[in-house]
Amino acid sequence: MQEGRQIKVGVLGATGTVGQRFITLLAVHPWFVIDALGASSRSAGKSYSKAANWKQTTPIPASIRDLMVHECKPEYFLNCAVVFSGLDADAAGDIEAAFRAAELAVFSNAKNFRRDPHVPLIVPFVNASHLSIIPQQQSLHSPPLKKGFIVTNANCSTTGCVIPLAALEKAFGPIESLLVTTMQAISGAGYPGVASLDIMDNVVPYIGSEEEKMEWETLKILGGIADSDDGLKTFDMHSRHPLRVSASCNRVPVIDGHTECVSIRFARRPPPSPQQVREALAVFSPDAQALGCPSAPRRTIVVHEEPDRPQPRLDRYYQDGAGVSVGRVRQCQVLDIKFVVLANNVSIGAATSSIINAELAVLKGVISG
Amino acid sequence: MQEGRQIKVGVLGATGTVGQRFITLLAVHPWFVIDALGASSRSAGKSYSKAANWKQTTPIPASIRDLMVHECKPEYFLNCAVVFSGLDADAAGDIEAAFRAAELAVFSNAKNFRRDPHVPLIVPFVNASHLSIIPQQQSLHSPPLKKGFIVTNANCSTTGCVIPLAALEKAFGPIESLLVTTMQAISGAGYPGVASLDIMDNVVPYIGSEEEKMEWETLKILGGIADSDDGLKTFDMHSRHPLRVSASCNRVPVIDGHTECVSIRFARRPPPSPQQVREALAVFSPDAQALGCPSAPRRTIVVHEEPDRPQPRLDRYYQDGAGVSVGRVRQCQVLDIKFVVLANNVSIGAATSSIINAELAVLKGVISG
Amino acid sequence: MQEGRQIKVGVLGATGTVGQRFITLLAVHPWFVIDALGASSRSAGKSYSKAANWKQTTPIPASIRDLMVHECKPEYFLNCAVVFSGLDADAAGDIEAAFRAAELAVFSNAKNFRRDPHVPLIVPFVNASHLSIIPQQQSLHSPPLKKGFIVTNANCSTTGCVIPLAALEKAFGPIESLLVTTMQAISGAGYPGVASLDIMDNVVPYIGSEEEKMEWETLKILGGIADSDDGLKTFDMHSRHPLRVSASCNRVPVIDGHTECVSIRFARRPPPSPQQVREALAVFSPDAQALGCPSAPRRTIVVHEEPDRPQPRLDRYYQDGAGVSVGRVRQCQVLDIKFVVLANNVSIGAATSSIINAELAVLKGVISG
Amino acid sequence: MQEGRQIKVGVLGATGTVGQRFITLLAVHPWFVIDALGASSRSAGKSYSKAANWKQTTPIPASIRDLMVHECKPEYFLNCAVVFSGLDADAAGDIEAAFRAAELAVFSNAKNFRRDPHVPLIVPFVNASHLSIIPQQQSLHSPPLKKGFIVTNANCSTTGCVIPLAALEKAFGPIESLLVTTMQAISGAGYPGVASLDIMDNVVPYIGSEEEKMEWETLKILGGIADSDDGLKTFDMHSRHPLRVSASCNRVPVIDGHTECVSIRFARRPPPSPQQVREALAVFSPDAQALGCPSAPRRTIVVHEEPDRPQPRLDRYYQDGAGVSVGRVRQCQVLDIKFVVLANNVSIGAATSSIINAELAVLKGVISG
Repeated sequence: MQEGRQIKVGVLGATGTVGQRFITLLAVHPWFVIDALGASSRSAGKSYSKAANWKQTTPIPASIRDLMVHECKPEYFLNCAVVFSGLDADAAGDIEAAFRAAELAVFSNAKNFRRDPHVPLIVPFVNASHLSIIPQQQSLHSPPLKKGFIVTNANCSTTGCVIPLAALEKAFGPIESLLVTTMQAISGAGYPGVASLDIMDNVVPYIGSEEEKMEWETLKILGGIADSDDGLKTFDMHSRHPLRVSASCNRVPVIDGHTECVSIRFARRPPPSPQQVREALAVFSPDAQALGCPSAPRRTIVVHEEPDRPQPRLDRYYQDGAGVSVGRVRQCQVLDIKFVVLANNVSIGAATSSIINAELAVLKGVISG
Repeated sequence: MQEGRQIKVGVLGATGTVGQRFITLLAVHPWFVIDALGASSRSAGKSYSKAANWKQTTPIPASIRDLMVHECKPEYFLNCAVVFSGLDADAAGDIEAAFRAAELAVFSNAKNFRRDPHVPLIVPFVNASHLSIIPQQQSLHSPPLKKGFIVTNANCSTTGCVIPLAALEKAFGPIESLLVTTMQAISGAGYPGVASLDIMDNVVPYIGSEEEKMEWETLKILGGIADSDDGLKTFDMHSRHPLRVSASCNRVPVIDGHTECVSIRFARRPPPSPQQVREALAVFSPDAQALGCPSAPRRTIVVHEEPDRPQPRLDRYYQDGAGVSVGRVRQCQVLDIKFVVLANNVSIGAATSSIINAELAVLKGVISG
Repeated sequence: MQEGRQIKVGVLGATGTVGQRFITLLAVHPWFVIDALGASSRSAGKSYSKAANWKQTTPIPASIRDLMVHECKPEYFLNCAVVFSGLDADAAGDIEAAFRAAELAVFSNAKNFRRDPHVPLIVPFVNASHLSIIPQQQSLHSPPLKKGFIVTNANCSTTGCVIPLAALEKAFGPIESLLVTTMQAISGAGYPGVASLDIMDNVVPYIGSEEEKMEWETLKILGGIADSDDGLKTFDMHSRHPLRVSASCNRVPVIDGHTECVSIRFARRPPPSPQQVREALAVFSPDAQALGCPSAPRRTIVVHEEPDRPQPRLDRYYQDGAGVSVGRVRQCQVLDIKFVVLANNVSIGAATSSIINAELAVLKGVISG
Repeated sequence: MQEGRQIKVGVLGATGTVGQRFITLLAVHPWFVIDALGASSRSAGKSYSKAANWKQTTPIPASIRDLMVHECKPEYFLNCAVVFSGLDADAAGDIEAAFRAAELAVFSNAKNFRRDPHVPLIVPFVNASHLSIIPQQQSLHSPPLKKGFIVTNANCSTTGCVIPLAALEKAFGPIESLLVTTMQAISGAGYPGVASLDIMDNVVPYIGSEEEKMEWETLKILGGIADSDDGLKTFDMHSRHPLRVSASCNRVPVIDGHTECVSIRFARRPPPSPQQVREALAVFSPDAQALGCPSAPRRTIVVHEEPDRPQPRLDRYYQDGAGVSVGRVRQCQVLDIKFVVLANNVSIGAATSSIINAELAVLKGVISG
């Protein structure tokens, strides 16, 4: 990355919750410059400040207020080297495919392509190596692509969980069982999302499809890439060391920040001690390349010693929400180790992940810029 | 129980959160009549309406408003056949012991005597049979007692969990692993209890000693009573079929009602299916004697079919909070079965348990009345 | 009203928030028996338990669970003497007019007909005398009606305010200025209503059209009925003693119960003292006829002496929410007197008002039954 | 102020809520450097990180973590040119007096000296001119002081209100009536402060002494300084144009940010229009000197045009909470004009005010530095 070079980017779904977060982050980004905004036809043709029902705690960035919103068609984004998608799942499939076909690099927060066998599902610092599937994604496309591709990031509840798990697998080898109970923030459901009558003074012990997402995505992310008989690369879904994942997902009256109670069993006997786990988490650091990502946190995992941390209200905004916080590392009477992890679902759990993934792609030369 | 017979009772810790709940329930009880109220010396000598910082959603019962509050000394409670204790742990130990020594039957919500090897820890409909230890408690007392004894009920988070577990052990035999994550209401911490700055828009992933209580109490409650070599009865702590319990306890911004995500593994292979579990929970009914308890719910366990229930706000007051609600019974990828249980921590999790325990003791003739 | 006589009623908008409240109340009503349920075409043809997304804290009444939901067409309600409407404003206008034209007595919670010059806007115990406009409403209808009419009740925030004001005008004569600031519960906006992202840890100082409603409805309700030159009766809008009303309406994170800070200036000099005001509120009792309304509270206005009451969480369910609570009666440095009033917006502020209005109409012979 | 010059400061009550806020702000202050921390004897002798129950959303500043906490005795603060006090009222009186007597410049957030006839009660940008009373405060002290003095800032609810009122009096002359209803955040009560059981899903329509504070402080702040017959300066309490103030104070479930509904009547007839008021608020700018205060916001008053703003959750952190937000400027049917004001009670309503006051004192030469 040359000093001072700027990369033009677009934002799809720019008026939505994730889109607003993209804009807030990109407006102060050292490399990426917002060049085009896309939203539904209802918003198209309006200035951004007119089109968006802005819900962030900082005002709309001055440089964006008067930018015209377009429909989500590639023709308006041809100057962009990268497009970030905060589209809802019902729109994301067709639009992202169209943008890829138009030779754009799409970094998507939507779920639509996460299970695609040629699309990497990347959580920063966990499996950046999966970017290596992109040439195959391009060559199998009809017609084959030169620059266009799609990279997805994970569901917000998955992200918080897999970062410490990756640290632990790196240190202690395969995990064979994961039992996780989440307490997820309302912002994870977008806007208007959760009705206040449903969540005030309440817990909703169910989030549609969330448990299936966590159980499936965890395997794709923590697994490797295998060469199959037909010469193609495939995601191995952690199959060399089967990993059983059981998730229970709950919505709680918290605005931002997903808290998760995690219990795991390692393949290795005897398992590491709580203190060894703490140390492995604290020293975990990302790929060498990642060190150059401007949106990466200084500390990937903060390990709390206080018995009552992490807490979403106190810890979610630390490092702009780009790291994860772990606490209460202790023995589990049923599996081996249990702990609490907190991840900011709108930052590392959503927009920040997409942006770091794009930064990684730039640093690895996947994006020509 | 003779028709229309009335039993005089006292309430210790009458001005506190649990005490207020005792008073609300006892004021409309068909058998028990409040005869004496005890609180700290700060409250003694005042009328109840002056002494209590009343926080219930119904006014102080008219019959109680002007009742004088006494210090917690047995001399003021000599007319009572039963004393309910809502005392805080720092006071409960000495006072409850003194009341027992004064030949009073004490039903306590405090933790102090729960681990006493001669004091039963009873959750209604789970282990009423443990009342059989009372003669031993009395005979080993110095001096031996004729009428005095202490019965405790469980911690509020334990109670919600063990009721469905008892139903499942009755139907399918021993459970060998239990992994439970709780989302507990603020009222479980009493008043003033949790500071609003600590819990609004937040989750606190720690409640002091709560996990240890759940892990230990579950064993005492679900275990049986064994005859030891010295001729004494002992609680066997589920030792014939060791049960491993791992609890993660969280405080959430909910006023009343503890929600718990439970995963279990049965000893029996193959384990029961989710549908078999649902049926066993739904048909679970208490001891024959229990059917005569006026405070028992019509349905001990309500099994919800809707995917997003139970929820504390919607389900906690059903049957006056005397039953428990279970939902989302499904397979666990790591253990066998997982489900969500909701129990009203101030009702079946506290005062209602004590009252049903006393009703059971009356019906079984343990209290002469 | 003959002993044991039953009156068949229908509920329009039966699946909505207000409709659910109507059903909960009517299922245990001594006179009214639900005979027919109406909702949108989406719900029509389904059993009620299938059609409704039930959000009450008690289960659907057993007698209603399997009742078929119809479209809101009079043909399905011909057995009903009374129809209660919990319809949304966008549907209520045409449907309620059609039901009236079909000779049904409609008691509506919707705003559509509140400003109609021939439709009474009645808050129980304030202006039941306005029922006297009904014959005129019927005779001016084209074609003239024999039994059909519409009675509306007030907006939830208006209701809480005008009940104590009526008591004070009765005792001390006209009020000439009213400045009221409301803190309104989320349930006032229906379901899904207020997004949780908009109201958690927040105040929204604006509710669309609410201030205008309070300012206008207060005049119609507290005003009398005048005979105009053309022989018709007209609502005088308090014009004999002009009343200036200034409302500021806020949404706060409270589930049920609107709290209002009220400051008033009386025409009378010197104004009554706070103590006189307290006494006038406490002794206020409804029309003689009202004493026979089974849904009327025992005490219309509860006056609190504690400095920090009323509070929505503690006081909203007292008397099933059918009364209002007033506290902090004190001098206002700018006007004369200020106080706090709390009314349960889903009870006396909505469904309970409609039901008491219907009870009054039965007792006054307006409904033949 | 010379470029790069640094001024050593101390913080009293350093472990409390306001003290933590002082530390967070001062740790990044361009002039002030924390040199000493004071707290109760319970904390004295410990490192700050051990002594404080830190509740901020950013970690303890690295430079402060290991600073030793002292008792609040002047001997430990002799290197400081300025001392900021976040002490509770029960301790602040004696301690602040002792620090003044020891020739320290004390900027206090406590209420104890606000009504002192020689102590200025200063809200930044409203009445910095009141600093001119300091020489009299020093000369009347026994013994007379050279450098020591006390400056207080206002109660958090007063602050938000008087800033726009000052702007309006500057533009349109005296206000003669003010009727204000507040919806105050829980952080205004400190820690542990408001019990969660008291405020979740609730409004408490009472805050002890708060209304009296608002009614009295407003007069001192908005009034001038008069020369009395005995040659002394006195605060005139707005007596040349008597101002009647009526406040109703409520606690609402909001973490930070006091929202206030304000109605005012001007002396001037006809009163200004809403549009004139909006313009006067938007252009209001502080004293010339104030422009050099590093903690002053760029915009003192932000006037919102959207109908539903300001909202605490969205607007309280803008400009680090150093400005105030006003919205919904419109006619009042009873007085002249009404609007909504939002002020961050922990920033401009507390610590930020003290710090700007100290900056003003430095710029005006009141502190030698």
